[in-house]
Amino acid sequence: MDSIFNSIKLDKNIPIPLYYQLKKQIFTLIENAAIQEGSMLPPENELCEVLNVSRPTIRQALSELVNEGYLSRYKGKGTFISNPKVEECFLSKLETFNQEMKSKGLTPQTLVIKLEKLTGPHEASEKLGLPLDAPLIYLSRVRLADQVPLVYVETFLPYEQYLKLMDVDFTVNSLYQSLEDIYQVRVNRVRREIEAINARRQEAELLQITKNKALILVRTVASSDDAPMPVEFSIARYRGDRNKFSVDILGYYYS
Amino acid sequence: MDSIFNSIKLDKNIPIPLYYQLKKQIFTLIENAAIQEGSMLPPENELCEVLNVSRPTIRQALSELVNEGYLSRYKGKGTFISNPKVEECFLSKLETFNQEMKSKGLTPQTLVIKLEKLTGPHEASEKLGLPLDAPLIYLSRVRLADQVPLVYVETFLPYEQYLKLMDVDFTVNSLYQSLEDIYQVRVNRVRREIEAINARRQEAELLQITKNKALILVRTVASSDDAPMPVEFSIARYRGDRNKFSVDILGYYYS
Repeated sequence: MDSIFNSIKLDKNIPIPLYYQLKKQIFTLIENAAIQEGSMLPPENELCEVLNVSRPTIRQALSELVNEGYLSRYKGKGTFISNPKVEECFLSKLETFNQEMKSKGLTPQTLVIKLEKLTGPHEASEKLGLPLDAPLIYLSRVRLADQVPLVYVETFLPYEQYLKLMDVDFTVNSLYQSLEDIYQVRVNRVRREIEAINARRQEAELLQITKNKALILVRTVASSDDAPMPVEFSIARYRGDRNKFSVDILGYYYS
Repeated sequence: MDSIFNSIKLDKNIPIPLYYQLKKQIFTLIENAAIQEGSMLPPENELCEVLNVSRPTIRQALSELVNEGYLSRYKGKGTFISNPKVEECFLSKLETFNQEMKSKGLTPQTLVIKLEKLTGPHEASEKLGLPLDAPLIYLSRVRLADQVPLVYVETFLPYEQYLKLMDVDFTVNSLYQSLEDIYQVRVNRVRREIEAINARRQEAELLQITKNKALILVRTVASSDDAPMPVEFSIARYRGDRNKFSVDILGYYYS
């Protein structure tokens, strides 16, 4: 890595603070993938020597990059290049996971953990407006982008209405697309609830992160003008270190 | 507590599963505040006796309530009544914190941690479209509802343009309202980015939670048709255990 850091040139004769020059140049190295994701930075004292700047300068540059998420610091281990977050607009727009990832130039992939018929949990039956003992389709998937697991999704649908979905291969087919192709049901109304939770063991394993890492939990009830009842209830757990949702809001607040 | 649990009546002659009857009745006790937030449930074996049902029945009822967030289980401590989450729609609507809390029948309160003039962090200057060395107003607040801290917000504004805000008492005045009253600047365009992070020590202390608890991080850039440049950049950290955001999305996805 030193060789790369030797490429950093700081100019003490311009009015831009040294730490900021340093920050920007490290940032550029990360952006250009000159430093690899997940790789460790040299220790601070080494950077001081190589770059011939003071420790506080190094510290400020690194802490800002940590705060902005480009670097991650692990106690007793060191400072590492963070992996970038995928910015999604699924809080403001209806898109399938595959569409969204492709539009970002990422390669989507889906692992189907389970596809089975069951009854309950009652939360799902209720959200779908079904009796508690109604059979449901349960589909759980881990969805990846460029081979990194981004989200673990558990989906529930009314079994009687959509049982043909049991024969669909969801490693290659999108759920919404299948609903449209097989049942001419097109999802066009979605309610999402967003929370933050700490990952439990099973979720952490599926998402390849450590237990207790922060997750964005999204509960979704999807409906369609083509169906009298809600079509889908899902619980999605997004890796906090890999996902970022953006939303634009227009209009005045009313005082 | 036992007395309260004695009030639970389970009917073995109806087709509704016992655990579900139990779950619903505990849920009702919680909803009616017959059991106090934060209080501990009796141990499972005690519940078995009092309610005369099997351990698995108790377990299933409790785990579903844990999964749905109404109960919290702490290793080696027991099972407790969770504190309810405040459901906000601020991802889909522009409202001030005070407006939103009042509309929920909650009493909002604001603690001003800092209100000062500074330069940087550069992320803020950049988001506000200002030179790196431009002076900024820095306002940090903890906002509570019914005396529970919900969110810690750090706000940055251009100092030159809005310096009269330095004289505002933000424990009683809303930022957006002040911008309108003093500068006739009405925020009407907001971009938010949502992430999940683990609370660091300082954030945890301000929010009265334990370190590493999941937080919803929201970065906001607010603009107004009344101002040529962005008005506000803020970083808000919401307690994951106390907040829930909901958003409705309409329109078809396009395949």
